[in-house]
Amino acid sequence: MDWRAQIHKPTLVVNQERVKQNIRRMQEKAQKSGVQFRPHFKTHQSAKVGEWYREAGVEKITVSSVKMGMYFASNGWKDITIAFPVNLRELSDIDDLAGRVHLNLLLLSEEVAETVNNGLKHQVDVWIKVDVGYGRTGIPWEEDERIYRLAKRIESLSHLNFRGLLTHAGQSYHMEDRDERARLFKSVAEGMGRLRDKLRQKGLEDCLISVGDTPTTTAAEDFSGVDEVRPGNFVYFDAQQYHLGVCREEELGAVVACPVVSVHPKRGEVVLYGGAIHLSKQTEEHPAIPGQKMHGYLVTAEASGWGKIRNENFVRAVSQEHGIAKVGFPLIDQLKPGDLVCVVPVHICLSVDLLDTAITTDSELFALELS
Amino acid sequence: MDWRAQIHKPTLVVNQERVKQNIRRMQEKAQKSGVQFRPHFKTHQSAKVGEWYREAGVEKITVSSVKMGMYFASNGWKDITIAFPVNLRELSDIDDLAGRVHLNLLLLSEEVAETVNNGLKHQVDVWIKVDVGYGRTGIPWEEDERIYRLAKRIESLSHLNFRGLLTHAGQSYHMEDRDERARLFKSVAEGMGRLRDKLRQKGLEDCLISVGDTPTTTAAEDFSGVDEVRPGNFVYFDAQQYHLGVCREEELGAVVACPVVSVHPKRGEVVLYGGAIHLSKQTEEHPAIPGQKMHGYLVTAEASGWGKIRNENFVRAVSQEHGIAKVGFPLIDQLKPGDLVCVVPVHICLSVDLLDTAITTDSELFALELS
Repeated sequence: MDWRAQIHKPTLVVNQERVKQNIRRMQEKAQKSGVQFRPHFKTHQSAKVGEWYREAGVEKITVSSVKMGMYFASNGWKDITIAFPVNLRELSDIDDLAGRVHLNLLLLSEEVAETVNNGLKHQVDVWIKVDVGYGRTGIPWEEDERIYRLAKRIESLSHLNFRGLLTHAGQSYHMEDRDERARLFKSVAEGMGRLRDKLRQKGLEDCLISVGDTPTTTAAEDFSGVDEVRPGNFVYFDAQQYHLGVCREEELGAVVACPVVSVHPKRGEVVLYGGAIHLSKQTEEHPAIPGQKMHGYLVTAEASGWGKIRNENFVRAVSQEHGIAKVGFPLIDQLKPGDLVCVVPVHICLSVDLLDTAITTDSELFALELS
Repeated sequence: MDWRAQIHKPTLVVNQERVKQNIRRMQEKAQKSGVQFRPHFKTHQSAKVGEWYREAGVEKITVSSVKMGMYFASNGWKDITIAFPVNLRELSDIDDLAGRVHLNLLLLSEEVAETVNNGLKHQVDVWIKVDVGYGRTGIPWEEDERIYRLAKRIESLSHLNFRGLLTHAGQSYHMEDRDERARLFKSVAEGMGRLRDKLRQKGLEDCLISVGDTPTTTAAEDFSGVDEVRPGNFVYFDAQQYHLGVCREEELGAVVACPVVSVHPKRGEVVLYGGAIHLSKQTEEHPAIPGQKMHGYLVTAEASGWGKIRNENFVRAVSQEHGIAKVGFPLIDQLKPGDLVCVVPVHICLSVDLLDTAITTDSELFALELS
């Protein structure tokens, strides 16, 4: 059955073959480097794609919320890192989850460490969140004395087991050059290594290093110098990663199918059922049209998947349910209300979070249950 | 019980008294003008707030999707307009809904009108979507002959009952001057009136006029010249409406409560559990800091509600789960991980869509069931 016949509203469309290839490629690189692969599951938020990871041999995962941890625990995952600073208001749920799986938490202050320890009945592994220059959260990596004191405090607390240092070099999402991203991976690995050396000199013995983001792990030839990588976006990729040159068009693993609801030939535009609550409000600069913002590329929906990116076909604006897409010739003359098109969204993680259903291009429907 | 004690994750906080006042004010203006009040329920998406409307005497509502129509039909609403062009891929659900309630649909092409008519077993009322210059969707209002032909075609189809012309002057969301917004309401009403006159001259007898957006309906002294108004945002308002001067700070009906997960005094920043998947990626220019984007104001969480907006306290960036907020003195020294703060979001409709739970400041939890 043609997958398109099953689409009634904005729906994630997944190319299973490409996704499995993306998983395999990243995992092989981690294995070759002798590094733990702990993919971030926030990108796909689905038990189904989780199964594809499991078939490829993945056993340890990363999530971004307690709720997401609960969901994947219910789907049989036994070793989970919540890659977000502990939210003390969820301590009771965190403790429940720690009773079900091997749970890894992120901490960056001694006060929070103590509160967490006092609130838990179960054991947890703990990582210190380190800021390697992204400036979002974490202890700046030059503050080795502060990191050391926190590690020692964690070691002294009965329910917490210190594991190491964890970072996310999010600045890679602004680097358009592959070599620059590869250098960033190397410099983060080396800098974290020097930090670990300093901590060892102070008397901290066991300390692993966990890093993770799609742009640098895709660019790096190998993962020498770290113990664990946690990329997530690479499973699907998106317009942002395509623009940065992180992926080739042929590696895009998922897009959003959207019904056409009106066609405006004079404006060279179509209106899609697919707006901010499906694609998100995230924008990118159009790479070929200076000053033009875009919310994704419009591509054709084909029986076998989706068509080619063309610069003239893109979503120029979104409101809550509406997507307004610029469409060039000859496509504008071929589209009519009720047709289906696909959108390569700017940031697929946000679209996945917003959508509730996915379908593979071989017509298997599956739920995005966290949405 | 203090409402704050019940918050574990990003949650909508609603000031019931203000919301009921906002509803009453808009409804009184509509009644005084002798105009049908059909509020847009996409802003609140909740059966609970729907009840407050019902207590105020509201019987007819607007929604933005078939799913939202189903939800409110299940909550006893009997007269519903789906203010979005008909998505032909949902025709079967639309027909089901038309069998349960008095349903109003939007059309803008004869081809779609025929397909809809052929696909329905039940009667529906139909409005023609007219574009009064916003450029999103609808037939441009100067194309009176095309509108006339479509109206006549609708009249000729057995399951469709032509009701009138419907528009949304979304350009009002960029007007910072109240008088300009009031003039826009008047010019849209007058222009739609002239369009109706032309259609009458051509031979179209009954034709109502429906308009709706919060900025113009809030600015207009009365609603003369139209038959129906459909504002939605006014029930809560948000940072965007506050910046435009559409509302006063004391009229804000809802904010998003977010736990603090880390404090960075040197940066003058705190990190919130509250990111793009709670607040949306929508940004505004900070009104007091040139070139600074913002995702909402950070205000204190008080037992009685929330504190005052201060220009130095705002969310400067969001990633998926993280909100990074600038916080001035003395607040930055008072906050610690585990505390609760509130965010006045840029666009409350998107936040409501993203969140799954709300609480009133008098501690009544309720679900946002569509999320």
